Formats: sequence, C-alpha cells, structure tokens
Amino acid sequence: MRSVVVVGAGLIGTSVGLALTARGVTTHLLDRDPRVARAAAALGAGRTGRPRRPADLAVLAVPPGQVARVLAAVQGEELARIYTDVASVKEVPLTHAAEAGCDLARFVGGHPMAGRETSGPEGARRDLFRGRPWVLTPSARSGGEALDTVLELVALCGARPVVMGHREHDRAVALTSHTPHLVASLLAGTLLRGESDELRLAGQGLRDTTRVAAGDPDLWTDILGDNAEAVLTVLDALHGDLSLAREALRDLARGGPTARPDAAARLRAVLERGVRGRARVPTPGRRPAENAPRVPDAAVSGAARVSRPSQMALPQGVRDGVRPVA
Amino acid sequence: MRSVVVVGAGLIGTSVGLALTARGVTTHLLDRDPRVARAAAALGAGRTGRPRRPADLAVLAVPPGQVARVLAAVQGEELARIYTDVASVKEVPLTHAAEAGCDLARFVGGHPMAGRETSGPEGARRDLFRGRPWVLTPSARSGGEALDTVLELVALCGARPVVMGHREHDRAVALTSHTPHLVASLLAGTLLRGESDELRLAGQGLRDTTRVAAGDPDLWTDILGDNAEAVLTVLDALHGDLSLAREALRDLARGGPTARPDAAARLRAVLERGVRGRARVPTPGRRPAENAPRVPDAAVSGAARVSRPSQMALPQGVRDGVRPVA
Repeated sequence: MRSVVVVGAGLIGTSVGLALTARGVTTHLLDRDPRVARAAAALGAGRTGRPRRPADLAVLAVPPGQVARVLAAVQGEELARIYTDVASVKEVPLTHAAEAGCDLARFVGGHPMAGRETSGPEGARRDLFRGRPWVLTPSARSGGEALDTVLELVALCGARPVVMGHREHDRAVALTSHTPHLVASLLAGTLLRGESDELRLAGQGLRDTTRVAAGDPDLWTDILGDNAEAVLTVLDALHGDLSLAREALRDLARGGPTARPDAAARLRAVLERGVRGRARVPTPGRRPAENAPRVPDAAVSGAARVSRPSQMALPQGVRDGVRPVA
Repeated sequence: MRSVVVVGAGLIGTSVGLALTARGVTTHLLDRDPRVARAAAALGAGRTGRPRRPADLAVLAVPPGQVARVLAAVQGEELARIYTDVASVKEVPLTHAAEAGCDLARFVGGHPMAGRETSGPEGARRDLFRGRPWVLTPSARSGGEALDTVLELVALCGARPVVMGHREHDRAVALTSHTPHLVASLLAGTLLRGESDELRLAGQGLRDTTRVAAGDPDLWTDILGDNAEAVLTVLDALHGDLSLAREALRDLARGGPTARPDAAARLRAVLERGVRGRARVPTPGRRPAENAPRVPDAAVSGAARVSRPSQMALPQGVRDGVRPVA
C-alpha cells in the first residue's frame, strides 16, 4: 500500500494519517473544513488535497450518518481503488450505501475500537490503535482485494483485526459501547441537580463512571440513532433491573432492612448480577475470569497471522450473519 | 494521640492502622475473625488484641449496619475515650446509636472518601487516604474534644477534613457515589446477556463505566439500604431521563432520523445534559469547568489549617443541617 486518502481529519482520521505517515505511506488529507485538514497536516498526518491518480485506499473518517453519502461521492470521482470507513455503526450505513448505488465490491466496513473524549486533529495520536481491536465487516458483496487492502491498513496502524458480520458488530457495540455511553450520560445528567458543594465529595468512582459522557453529543446522537434497535434491547433489560432496584429501595426506605429482609435480598440480587457481569469484561493482559465466556478468537489470530488474509475462510457465523444488501 | 484501636481489620481499618503505625501511633487491631486481625498485624498495621487501658480513639471500621451495635458494645467496655466510624452512610447509624443509648458526646461520625474494589486487609495501603476528602459529621451532641481527636486522626492519615451535617453528607454521597455504584451494577448486569464473543469488543470505556460494580454486594446492599431515600431521589430523576431516551430511540428505530427529526433532538438533549453534568465533576489538580459550581470550601481549608480545630466556628450550613438526635 503506497497511497491512502483520509476523508475527515478529526481525531480518528488524523490518527490514521499519523500512523500511516510513520510507516512511509503517502497520505492525503481531505476535510470539508480546509483549516482542519491543514491542522492535521501540520501535525504530520499527511498532505492536504486530492491525489493525482486514484489512491490504493480511501478511509472515510466521517460520522456514521454521512458514510453512505460520502462513499457515493468519492466513488463517483474515483478517489481510490478500495474504500473503508471507521463508523461505530455498520448496518444502517451499509444499507444506505447500497441504496445510493455504491460499488460494494470495493468497500469493506471498519470500526477501530479506540477513541478519546476529545475530538478534532489536536487529540490525535499515532499509537491510538496499537493493540486495539479493529472490526472489519465485509459484506457478501465485498471482494477479496478489498478485504486484503483494509487488513493491510489495520496492520499498518498496529491494530488487531476482528472480522464480524455487520449485524453481529452492531449488537456487540450496543452492549459494550453504545448503551454504556448513554447510561454514563444519564448518570452524569443527574449531577446537574446536585447542590454546589455536594460535588466536592466526588472521587475516582464518579470520574470513571461518567468519563465517556463528555463525548460529542452530535456524534453520539448519530451513533445511537443508527443503532437504536440494538441499544433499545439492552436498555429494556437495564430498565427492568432498574425497576426491581427502585422497588426494593422503596421497601427499604419505608420499612428498614429488618422489616423487609426480602427487599434487601432483591437489591442484593441486582448488585450480584453486576458483579458477575463485570467479571465478563476482559482486562488487557489478564485471562478472563472463570465465569467469563470463553472467547473463540480463531478469526482474530488467524487474520493477524495469515499473510494473504483474503484466502482465509471466514468463520461460519460471519458468513451466516452477512445478509446480501439491497 | 498515642493509642488507637481499630475495630474491623478490613481494607479501610487496616489502611488506617498502616497510616497510624507509620506515624508512631500505637495501634490495636480487633476483628470478629481473629485470623483477619492477625493478617492485618502481619502487614504492619498494628498489634492484635485490646489495649490495657482505654485508648485515645477507637475507629469503627465496620459496615454501616453494624456501627450502632458495635459502638454500644465498645463504649460499654470503655475501649477508648473518643469514637468514630468510617461508614458510607451517616444518618441511619447515628439514629440507631442514639436509640441504643450510646454516649454521642464522645462520638463524631466519619467517612474517608477512599476505597478500592478489593476488600480485606490484603488490599490495604498506607497512603489510601492521602489527599482525599475525609468527611466528619459532628452531631449537635458531639463534644469539642471528640472533634479535635478525630481531626487529628484525619491529619495523621494525610487526608483533607470536610465537615458536614450528616443528612447533607448522605444526600451528597447518594449523588456522587451510591447512585453511580448502583447504575454501574445495572449496566454491568446487562453484560450477562451478551453472546460469548460480543465482549471481546470491550474497551476502556466499558471497563471504566463498570469498574465499581465489582464491589462487595453485601456491603453495598447495606449502604444503599441505609441511604435508600436519598438514592431513590436521584434514581427517580435518572429514570425520567431514561424514559425520554427510550422513547426517542423507539421513534428513531421506527422512522429513522429524517422521519423524526424531533426524536433526534430529544435524544441529543439527554446526551447534552450528560456533557454538562460531567463538566461538574471536579478533576484533581484542575480548576472546575466554567459551568461547574463554585465550591465554597472554606470549611475544608479552615479545618486543615487551624491547629486547634474545635475552636473554629462550624460553617452555618453545617450547624443548620445537624438535627439533634433522639
């Protein structure tokens, strides 16, 4: 891979540019705001402006709601041979891209699982993706060359490729990222009702539980809106447990723990589910807890090792999960 | 202060013992399980067993539900001159202590705002309290000598004293600690429904938002149960915003963002409240954000500076907030 165009010089786009430039890949930076592209270039993420001939790859680092429109536009001007995106939602943009008549043989959706609460090129880091999962969601129409090329991008950024179906991806991030973000926002929103000096008792627990709530509300409206159904499924479950907890607390507030021992047991059950759920969260560098699921990651390590990844058989679940688009 | 008895050699009690021993204070360690007391002593947190004559101070490092009973028992055997506790809830234990006939003139409630997800003496650290707020909630009955003695404990542990009324404390921790814990548990509970390989996409965001959910469910049932009313007030507000978010997501799932632009606006409003609430969380070493409340911390710095703290006038709000007990 010799040349890449990054479309959208925000946090992710600029970080991709920094990683590629460091590996000797000629990187072109485009942004609807030319000042942003210039800022990214000044940081060493590449050069501004279009390449003279089609690049090997175009990375669309735009919000999910703009992926289809931008893909149609840049394919129309033959910006590159192969295309990928970095959006946090995969099914809706793919459906829209199909509806917009995009050439899906030359497109493989992608989602690097890395980010920061900052936005814009200033927060970008060359090693943002190092060691992190980078999900690829080839559709039934994606060609082998497209998957090869995007896998090379992932390798150049130092990330760990994970191949999944797009609906499987959307369900997974609803659970591990989108719902946690919304819940952190809901929790942080309660702090607006606090008296001025109540907040001085805040500790690391509150900082950690609300950290992601600082994220850009426009971007997150876009993400959550495009993954609404999968997020709702998780939220409905959470709402059920919240109702149980509130009822138990109401009983405890009325009667005290001795008056209603079963209320304490009901509250404890919710907390105990939390302990078990938390044990399923993988900690980097540690083996999963005994009650955590065993993760079949043959696809991951396979893709990372095989030098010509398009030859590898996609795991059954991925092929099954991929619905032909349009 | 020459001698202290720590009752309960768990994480907090052992950390107090380590801090005091390092400052040359003779520390005695008691625990209902003698093996736990011996483990804490082996770590250097003090010596096991009762002192021969009453100690200067007894620190009750037991769960909130046991404070009143243990206080009555140790006052009955004249274990010390002055007593404090470290429980995360202050009003219910104080009421129970008054009902149990404890001598409240020699008691000042305390709550060091420090902790870890581990429990037991093994997780204890000498510097656990360094620079952290340590709330003291003198009641209308607390004597000046009692407040002086407990302020000396806080200073010896390197913490920053914050004097508050007990109800004010309970409201503040409902907002900054108890509700966040329960919400983290609810969120972590949703992970039990995930497919085995969905969790491998988990990143730092999920780790942070669910970290505190690993806490001991028995201890937290006790804490939340004793502060049920204040927690419910915050949870009710969160539940209202959750309902708004779910409704907006349902509309978006049905119609898509273009069909229901107002649904996107409603979802965005919830996220935007989260951004503003998050900005109120103080970051150590940073000035509060512009929209964060200005924290009147005269009480804090005053208490830290004055060498004979019982002579300082308690801030108006604290005296007002203290209801005479029983």
